[in-house]
Amino acid sequence: MKIVRVDTKTDDITYGGVEPEGIRLYRGSPFVAWEPTETVVDWEEARLLAPIIPTKIVCVGRNYVGHAEEMGNEVPEQPLLFLKPPTTVIGPMQQIRYPASSNELSYEAELAVVIGTVTRNVDIEDVGPHIIGYTAANDITARDHQRTDGQWTRAKGFDTFCPLGPAIDTDVDPQEGLSIISRVNGEIRQSGSTADMVFGVGHLVSYISKIMTLLPGDVILTGTPEGVGSVNPGDKIEVQIEGIGVLTNTVSS
Amino acid sequence: MKIVRVDTKTDDITYGGVEPEGIRLYRGSPFVAWEPTETVVDWEEARLLAPIIPTKIVCVGRNYVGHAEEMGNEVPEQPLLFLKPPTTVIGPMQQIRYPASSNELSYEAELAVVIGTVTRNVDIEDVGPHIIGYTAANDITARDHQRTDGQWTRAKGFDTFCPLGPAIDTDVDPQEGLSIISRVNGEIRQSGSTADMVFGVGHLVSYISKIMTLLPGDVILTGTPEGVGSVNPGDKIEVQIEGIGVLTNTVSS
Repeated sequence: MKIVRVDTKTDDITYGGVEPEGIRLYRGSPFVAWEPTETVVDWEEARLLAPIIPTKIVCVGRNYVGHAEEMGNEVPEQPLLFLKPPTTVIGPMQQIRYPASSNELSYEAELAVVIGTVTRNVDIEDVGPHIIGYTAANDITARDHQRTDGQWTRAKGFDTFCPLGPAIDTDVDPQEGLSIISRVNGEIRQSGSTADMVFGVGHLVSYISKIMTLLPGDVILTGTPEGVGSVNPGDKIEVQIEGIGVLTNTVSS
Repeated sequence: MKIVRVDTKTDDITYGGVEPEGIRLYRGSPFVAWEPTETVVDWEEARLLAPIIPTKIVCVGRNYVGHAEEMGNEVPEQPLLFLKPPTTVIGPMQQIRYPASSNELSYEAELAVVIGTVTRNVDIEDVGPHIIGYTAANDITARDHQRTDGQWTRAKGFDTFCPLGPAIDTDVDPQEGLSIISRVNGEIRQSGSTADMVFGVGHLVSYISKIMTLLPGDVILTGTPEGVGSVNPGDKIEVQIEGIGVLTNTVSS
């Protein structure tokens, strides 16, 4: 199924499930316990929010050979981890804010793993049940700050720098190779497959879980394929992942 | 005053205020609204917890000249930021876990700023009212991973790598120069003054607030003075900051 979080005009913020007629609202949360209500809202009535608010966003750098090469880097021997603060998260159609201090903003289309249960010290073969599903992410990066700062926290950490959505899909399997595409103003910039990750989802979740406990709703951004580049104020960025949907955001002016 | 968070044997987890006779329990939270109760518990009855559970821990590297030099680094032109995940937090007397993957664990005594209100895009001269107080922190670091990984997320991000406490002091002023000391098994290893920070608290909070929104309870670790070094399983580490108290933790075997 496809899980969304919506701000309807008539109800509170709530989780929902995508159905052919619209979005069925649910009571509770998919991370604890939830049940469907009788209410199905039209797409037009519901504003989609980021499908989760994570306690942490763990990101993996240089996890596609083509992107490591285009940045002039080697593929690392172990997953290269960094964090984005939770305050970076925005939902579909929300604006990415171009920081005054930067002159080079870049998109990075990424598959995001959404953790469903407390995950600590888990071996690769046991990772499956800890994942509730997958969504699309855009790892917005101030490339100039990334070059100068050494640590990537500022470059990756501005408010609005982590669009997530539109839905958590609970059925897709990234090992089978989901196409992952980004477009800027309709033009394709990145076109890869999740099958080309250097470290697959099982490896990543296991590796991270042996460092830090992952909590329900935490998100792992699994790296970006080649084709990153700059965007300008007013640009529309789309991240499309097969089976998940299209995550659209514009850059503020 | 000194704010603590306690797990009493008879009551729920609650905030408390330190008084001569013991810890007065409070209803509510200092970040929203709280009021004193009639209950004062003895020190012996109360287990101190980390005084806050932050949504993010923003850390500043190389913020004392002596420490930058001992690591062979220059002092940066702007604050060098990195993040520790919230899952690193432990309280006083809790054990720091020595990771199986590391052979070189180090302590770093740091003054921690505790944010009291939503803090976004604040100028240096307006920072004061956004700070609820200060506590002590130990920025535990797997120095070997820090050297090899490039990004410091793994080296700084293991569960238990951020002891915080014992209390949030709402009255101290780091600009006046608070002594900051660390001891390993009773022997002084670091002895500095918060007046020697390269970037002071006002500068740091302002700088960070122009990147990411700081939320109530968020914590900023302001860097460590010179004298860092390795610890072994079983070692007792104390971080003592003038006016705040002593944060004591042992390293697990």
